[in-house]
Amino acid sequence: MIKFLKLSPFQNALDFCKFFSSIEVFEELNIFQLNNRVSFEDVSSRFSLPLENRSAVDGYAVFSEETFGSSENTPVLLRLLGEQKVGDPPLSIERGGCVKVATGSTLPINSNGVVMLEHTKTSGEFVEVYKAISYYENVLKKGEDFKEGYVLVNKGKRINFRDCAILAASGFETIKVYKKPRVAIISTGDEIISYKEKLTVSKIYDANGPLIVNGIETFAEPIFLGVVKDNRKDLEEKFKYAIKNCDCIFISGGSSIGERDYVEEVIKSFGEVIYHGFLVKPGKPLLLGRNGNMPIIGFPGHPLPVMIYLNLVGIPILKKLGGDRNFYPKSDKGILRDPIFSVPGRVDLIMGYKENDLVVPLLSKSDYISSATKSELIIKIPEDREIVLEGEEVEIFLWE
Amino acid sequence: MIKFLKLSPFQNALDFCKFFSSIEVFEELNIFQLNNRVSFEDVSSRFSLPLENRSAVDGYAVFSEETFGSSENTPVLLRLLGEQKVGDPPLSIERGGCVKVATGSTLPINSNGVVMLEHTKTSGEFVEVYKAISYYENVLKKGEDFKEGYVLVNKGKRINFRDCAILAASGFETIKVYKKPRVAIISTGDEIISYKEKLTVSKIYDANGPLIVNGIETFAEPIFLGVVKDNRKDLEEKFKYAIKNCDCIFISGGSSIGERDYVEEVIKSFGEVIYHGFLVKPGKPLLLGRNGNMPIIGFPGHPLPVMIYLNLVGIPILKKLGGDRNFYPKSDKGILRDPIFSVPGRVDLIMGYKENDLVVPLLSKSDYISSATKSELIIKIPEDREIVLEGEEVEIFLWE
Repeated sequence: MIKFLKLSPFQNALDFCKFFSSIEVFEELNIFQLNNRVSFEDVSSRFSLPLENRSAVDGYAVFSEETFGSSENTPVLLRLLGEQKVGDPPLSIERGGCVKVATGSTLPINSNGVVMLEHTKTSGEFVEVYKAISYYENVLKKGEDFKEGYVLVNKGKRINFRDCAILAASGFETIKVYKKPRVAIISTGDEIISYKEKLTVSKIYDANGPLIVNGIETFAEPIFLGVVKDNRKDLEEKFKYAIKNCDCIFISGGSSIGERDYVEEVIKSFGEVIYHGFLVKPGKPLLLGRNGNMPIIGFPGHPLPVMIYLNLVGIPILKKLGGDRNFYPKSDKGILRDPIFSVPGRVDLIMGYKENDLVVPLLSKSDYISSATKSELIIKIPEDREIVLEGEEVEIFLWE
Repeated sequence: MIKFLKLSPFQNALDFCKFFSSIEVFEELNIFQLNNRVSFEDVSSRFSLPLENRSAVDGYAVFSEETFGSSENTPVLLRLLGEQKVGDPPLSIERGGCVKVATGSTLPINSNGVVMLEHTKTSGEFVEVYKAISYYENVLKKGEDFKEGYVLVNKGKRINFRDCAILAASGFETIKVYKKPRVAIISTGDEIISYKEKLTVSKIYDANGPLIVNGIETFAEPIFLGVVKDNRKDLEEKFKYAIKNCDCIFISGGSSIGERDYVEEVIKSFGEVIYHGFLVKPGKPLLLGRNGNMPIIGFPGHPLPVMIYLNLVGIPILKKLGGDRNFYPKSDKGILRDPIFSVPGRVDLIMGYKENDLVVPLLSKSDYISSATKSELIIKIPEDREIVLEGEEVEIFLWE
C-alpha cells in the first residue's frame, strides 16, 4: 500500500524552489554564444552611446540659429564646407557654412543641428536651406541611448538576443555566465525498457528519460544515467555517481509497489525527503527531497505528471540553481469556455488550450500523454472547488 | 540621397515569406536530441498505448460482476490467486478469485476491473471487497491513449519535450528532422568595428552580428562572415561564399550614402531586389530580395530595426525554410494604457511591455537599443491613425 504519511498542499510543490539557492560558479562565454544563458555579473557600459553627437538623418550639419527664418519661399544660403563621412573623424564648421552628413555621421565640431536633405537644394558651392530647425534637431546626442556606467544586464538576467546587441554595442567580447547545473536523470520501473530493447508484452518504452533530457537542455546539462530495473543496488550506484558528479537528481517511477518503497529508501539514505505525496491530481505520489543544496525530485512513473512537474517544479528549480532570478513557472489567468468538475480537497490540473481568448479544457484521464501533446497550457482547479463553471476565471500555467 | 523608388506597405514585409518554400533536406536525430527541431515526416505509432489493458491503480483484479452488491457492511470474499508484478507477463484469474495488481500492471487474463486497495482488506488467503466496481473500472484499456497508426507528430511540427515523450513511448530511436538552414551573416558600415578592435572617435562596435547570431541559433545555423567596410569587392567575395555555401543571407547596414548604393547593387548582381523601402518607422530602408529560393535581407544599420525585422521577417523566413508550418511571428491583441501619437501614411512600431493586462508603450526615439532590451513586445500603430488613445485595442507582436 502506498504510504503517504501526510499529503501536502499543492502550493508546497510550487514553493519547493525556496529550499535552494543558485550555484555560484561561472564560465566566460563569447558574445556570440550568450543566448539563453544567465549573466553572472552586473554588466555596466564602459562608454556612453552614442559615443559622441551623431546625425540621425542624411542632410547638412549647420548652426541651427542660422536657419531661423528660412522657409519654402525664403531659403537661407550656406556655404558647403565639406562632407563628413560615416566613420571618419569630425570636421568642423564655421559661421555661414555647413557640412554634408549621413545617418550615423559624427556631428561636425561647432554644429548644433542637422537639416534634412529633403529640405535643401544644392546650388554650386552653396546649399539652400528651406526649413528652420531647432537646436540639436535631427541629432542623437552623446549618451542619449545610455551613459557610461549604465547597467546593460543585471546579474541573474537570462540573456536574450536584444541583450546581446546592447552588450556587443558596448564592446564586450566575453561575459561571465552561470554554468548550467548538471542533472542526473534516472528512469526506474520493472516494466520500463530502453529504446534499444525489443518490446514484449507487459513492457513499455522509457518515455521519461527522453522527455526530461529534451525538456531541460536549455536550462541545464542533462546526464541520462539510464533505466534501472527493480534492483536497489543498481539504483544506489547511480545515486553515488550522481551525488559526486551532478547538482541535481531527477528520478522517475517506479510504479510497482516494492520499488516505490526502495526508491524512497535510497533517497533517504542519500539525503532527506521533504514532501512525499500531494493533494493534487495527477501527481499525488510526487516526492521532493534534497541533499543539502542538491534537489532530488522523484517524479511519478507516468509521463503526463512528469511533464507537468518538470514544468512546474523541475525547470523552475534548475533555473534557480542556474542563477536565473525569474524562475517561477509562467502563469496567467483565463476565462473558461467549458465547465470542469473536480473533487474538493485536492487541486486538479487539467490539460487545455486557448481558443478565441477562452480557456478550453481537454477533458481526459490523467494518463493520456496524447492529450498533453495537444495542450498549450495547464488549468489549475483550486482545492475548494467541486465545479468551475464556464465564464469563470481560472489560473493557468504555460508550458516552457 | 536615398533612392526609394516605391515605398511598400508594411504588410508586404510580413508576407515576404510567401516567396519561399521549405528546403526538403533532413537529418536523422536521436530521441534525446529532438527538442525544438522540426519533424520531416508524419510519425505514426507502431502500436497502441497502452499495449494491453493495464491497471490504473494499486488493488485487486477481479471479475467486476462478482463485486456487485458488495458494500462497507457486506464485503464479498475472493480467493487471492497471486500477484501480477509490473512488467511480468499476465497471470489469469478464475471465478471467485482475484490477483493483486499495482499501477501499471498488465491486467490478468479474464479479469475486467480492479478494486482499489483502500476498498479491500486481506484475510489469510482471502480478500474482502467492500465496494462494487463497474466493468473496466480502474483499468486503462488497450489503445485508450492512442491506437496503432495514430499520428504522433505531423510533418512540419516543431518538436517540444511533450512530443519527445510520446515518440519515446512509441519506441522511436531516431526521427527525421529538417536540417537547419545555414545563414550567412554580414555586417557592413565604414563606422563599424569588430569587438577585437579598439574603439576610436566616430566608430561603433558591431552589434548586429552578435544580435543576429544569438537570435537565430534555435532556428538556423548562423555563419558569421564578419564586418565589411566600404569595399564593394570584399562584399562580393562574401556574397560568392554565401551563395555557394548557405541557404539565406542576412546583411546589415550600411548607413553611409555611397555604401547603401553598392549594397543594393551587389544584391542585384547576385539576385533580385523585391522590396526596398517600407512605409514604416523604424525600418524604412529595409531591403528584401532573393536569389531563387534563397532569401536576402538587407537590414538597416541601427540595431533596433534589426531586432524588429529579425523578429518579424528574418526568423519567420528561417522557420519556413526549415520546414516549420507555424512560421508567422507571434502576435496578439492588447489594450493600450497610454495614448500614442503617430504619423498617418506609415505604420509605427513602438517598443512596449504589459502591466496589469494593459499594453504600455516605451516612448523613445527609434534608435534606442536600451529601450528594446526593456521591452516585451512591439506595438503596431496602423498607417491610417494619427493617434491611438488609451483604452483602444492594438495589435502587438511578441519577441521570440
